Amino acid sequence: MDQPMAAYDDSNIFAKILRGEIPSHRVYEDDDTIAFMDVMPQGPGHLLVVPKAPSRNLLDADPLVLGKTIAIVQRLAVAAKAAFAADGVSIFQFNEPAGGQTVFHLHFHVVPRFDGVPLQPHSGKMEDSAVLAEGAAKVKAALAA
Amino acid sequence: MDQPMAAYDDSNIFAKILRGEIPSHRVYEDDDTIAFMDVMPQGPGHLLVVPKAPSRNLLDADPLVLGKTIAIVQRLAVAAKAAFAADGVSIFQFNEPAGGQTVFHLHFHVVPRFDGVPLQPHSGKMEDSAVLAEGAAKVKAALAA
Repeated sequence: MDQPMAAYDDSNIFAKILRGEIPSHRVYEDDDTIAFMDVMPQGPGHLLVVPKAPSRNLLDADPLVLGKTIAIVQRLAVAAKAAFAADGVSIFQFNEPAGGQTVFHLHFHVVPRFDGVPLQPHSGKMEDSAVLAEGAAKVKAALAA
Repeated sequence: MDQPMAAYDDSNIFAKILRGEIPSHRVYEDDDTIAFMDVMPQGPGHLLVVPKAPSRNLLDADPLVLGKTIAIVQRLAVAAKAAFAADGVSIFQFNEPAGGQTVFHLHFHVVPRFDGVPLQPHSGKMEDSAVLAEGAAKVKAALAA
């Protein structure tokens, strides 16, 4: 028998972003989903797609929420690839600390990728806000195109 | 302007598995989706969830197909975590060679993860068939539980 999973805790940083308590460089929002630039990007254009409905991760999510979220992941992947003239896109979705999760509100990483360029490690260093703002503007322009 | 993406080519290995031309250690199948053990696992219980509908990757997929697929990804993630008594699960979905994609039919990696155990690199070494069969049996038992 495996351990029961911890309950959702709405003090996580993405819940605070959803409540507008802390800022983010948003690129997309609808009734169910938001997307914003990762503040510690593993490469140019690294963004996060986050459902508004509370769940700790994929394991306890409502499948209908997952369906809406993955459709937006796709839209953002296509837009980010175009916005950054990327050669590919990697999608990461981490569950529980052992699975790589550090913020406990379901999210998908959308990472534009470039031929011959490895992912940057998570350095813990915040990206410059101006760089994030410029990246967000590019993605929004690609979404509107 | 970025390059147009290559068209779907049904000579890929997952299309052959879908057509029954080559074997796999299947753990799940419905009208829209199959799941089977990865033959070069990055850890115990590493499996792949594959929609039957042809698309090269997430970028050109039908969003309805994506919705059905991610619901099965969730079911398999929960089952594989239980089957292997894992501490977490990582989901990877790679698009185009720069994004890490090596088989050009849309698929999601579901990788059980264990505290303090890094992912094994893709060695190019095939896992022993008996190990894969045992893993598949565990996942099927967890799905049925």
